[in-house]
Amino acid sequence: MPIAWGDEGRSAVILDQTLLPEHTVYRELRTLEDYHEAIGSLRVRGAPLIGITAAMGVAGLAAAEPGPGLAERVRAWCEHLAGARPTAVNLRWALDRMLAVALRDPADLAAALRAEADAIKAEDEEMCRRIGENALRLLGDTPTVLTHCNAGALATGGIGTALAPVYLAHQQGHRVKVYADETRPLLQGSRLTAWELAQAGVEVTIIADNTAGALMAFDPPDAVLVGADRIAANGDTANKIGTYPLAVLARHHGVPFYVLAPTSTLDLSCPDGAAIPIEVRAADEVRRGFGVLTAPPEVEVWSPAFDVTPAGLITAIITDRGVFRPPYESALAAAVAGS
Amino acid sequence: MPIAWGDEGRSAVILDQTLLPEHTVYRELRTLEDYHEAIGSLRVRGAPLIGITAAMGVAGLAAAEPGPGLAERVRAWCEHLAGARPTAVNLRWALDRMLAVALRDPADLAAALRAEADAIKAEDEEMCRRIGENALRLLGDTPTVLTHCNAGALATGGIGTALAPVYLAHQQGHRVKVYADETRPLLQGSRLTAWELAQAGVEVTIIADNTAGALMAFDPPDAVLVGADRIAANGDTANKIGTYPLAVLARHHGVPFYVLAPTSTLDLSCPDGAAIPIEVRAADEVRRGFGVLTAPPEVEVWSPAFDVTPAGLITAIITDRGVFRPPYESALAAAVAGS
Repeated sequence: MPIAWGDEGRSAVILDQTLLPEHTVYRELRTLEDYHEAIGSLRVRGAPLIGITAAMGVAGLAAAEPGPGLAERVRAWCEHLAGARPTAVNLRWALDRMLAVALRDPADLAAALRAEADAIKAEDEEMCRRIGENALRLLGDTPTVLTHCNAGALATGGIGTALAPVYLAHQQGHRVKVYADETRPLLQGSRLTAWELAQAGVEVTIIADNTAGALMAFDPPDAVLVGADRIAANGDTANKIGTYPLAVLARHHGVPFYVLAPTSTLDLSCPDGAAIPIEVRAADEVRRGFGVLTAPPEVEVWSPAFDVTPAGLITAIITDRGVFRPPYESALAAAVAGS
Repeated sequence: MPIAWGDEGRSAVILDQTLLPEHTVYRELRTLEDYHEAIGSLRVRGAPLIGITAAMGVAGLAAAEPGPGLAERVRAWCEHLAGARPTAVNLRWALDRMLAVALRDPADLAAALRAEADAIKAEDEEMCRRIGENALRLLGDTPTVLTHCNAGALATGGIGTALAPVYLAHQQGHRVKVYADETRPLLQGSRLTAWELAQAGVEVTIIADNTAGALMAFDPPDAVLVGADRIAANGDTANKIGTYPLAVLARHHGVPFYVLAPTSTLDLSCPDGAAIPIEVRAADEVRRGFGVLTAPPEVEVWSPAFDVTPAGLITAIITDRGVFRPPYESALAAAVAGS
């Protein structure tokens, strides 16, 4: 559980994800700055979880100071928290929902904010469960899967996106085995995915990112399961760097490649992958990854945070609203419209 | 220069590759144990360089103690040094050449041993140059290439194998650009390849292993150049883990994929890749890469040291004896026979 209420809803308790796996440290967030810092410094990460944390922050601050002028203060809190990670779409989306409650300004505003934060978290939990159910129908009873980065419980308010079918199969008593790419440079696979699966008792084996080819050759998994940061209207999918080579390997070996994501990840304003901006990260995340200098400091590094997997390599996009297969355009547009 | 004579041939001076890139430390090897430890602990690595170091060790010890019973002592030294890394084929091969000189027992045995060690080094240097020349004919004047691990000057007595055409192009005043995979888990790409190319003034950019897909999509290199640990009779090639996914990506993007290796890497006793044994390395090389815990200590790791690239994905095998293209069987057999 990456986040929970504390002090009867006047604070939030988070698992500090920057210290995993060596240290399991929970932190209580009480002040506006506590929430801002926790999101900004990636103590909580994963788009859904960031939104939930911000919403709980607003509700928690309101519960602690429910006096006069609350609606005005909520507006200021939302504005400040939205800047903690300006590019995270879910952060803005969750804060807009909190702001809408403040604008309605019901009799017990603090209670209404708490209810809205609880709803955001509950909806996310339900969305994860639905993704898991939709995916599990495509996998056998005892699947072996390969995943990349962390699209698990640590990134959401529920059982994750890419890992949702893994947790469901495990809960139903089926044997499921996960290979987790360590995911350079920040190692979300070995630090977070391996940790949360091991905690849950799921069988997990870490491989270096460059070992996926040998895995496909020697002992191919039943499927590759990845999350998504943004899905364009045509199905092209941006996700953590290293996702695209897995899609090429999966195609080469005839292994199904599934993208698992909530409908909110669909961005119909992007016609295709070429329109998705790709963030390039700092060189020292690669050069000094472990606090140790592992490359000449003067040598250049190219470290894009994401790559784009063309729709044609994606066997299916599995969302809370169903399973979509190529060609994606009209089906994805209908899913966003809520039909 | 990873190794040179010291003290008028009575010692050898090596660059300690375990400390790169943070520290450039040269060590003088004088005693039998010095040589054994330097090879065993990977202060010198790369199959050709290991053989050269052992040969220079035998000659250096002989120059320091050229007295009676030298042939007998050479036999004991060879036996001891051969155990420093039992699986390195070149180590045994170089020591057998030194032993053959001792068995001939010429008038000035110490001088003959020195001449044989010099010959082994000179032949290796020449072999590198020929690989480079053969490869350069296939690359344009100003190539951009992607390489993996370290098959450069630090692994040989010359300008390397995979990097040989890069050095030749650079020496001829052509602009050449290298992308170097960092090469998890031991980072030979970022620690060694980037270091030696930067030292030589060659333009080099490090990428995480999982970034090769994005590179192929956004700015494809003119070729992928890799070394080889063993090439089977049919052309299947074992090389550092992560080589095979590059071959699949290169094929997907229509980028030539070249294996560069001396003829001695051909192993006709292996009919194909399935016959090549794959060493599996310790989990903590991945879990505790640089003294930092980056994965739960109880979680399993699968860390094969090599993968096998099927001959069908290799555009050409470039050796000191020429360029070979599929189907490889008869051409490789002829190359080994020296025709």
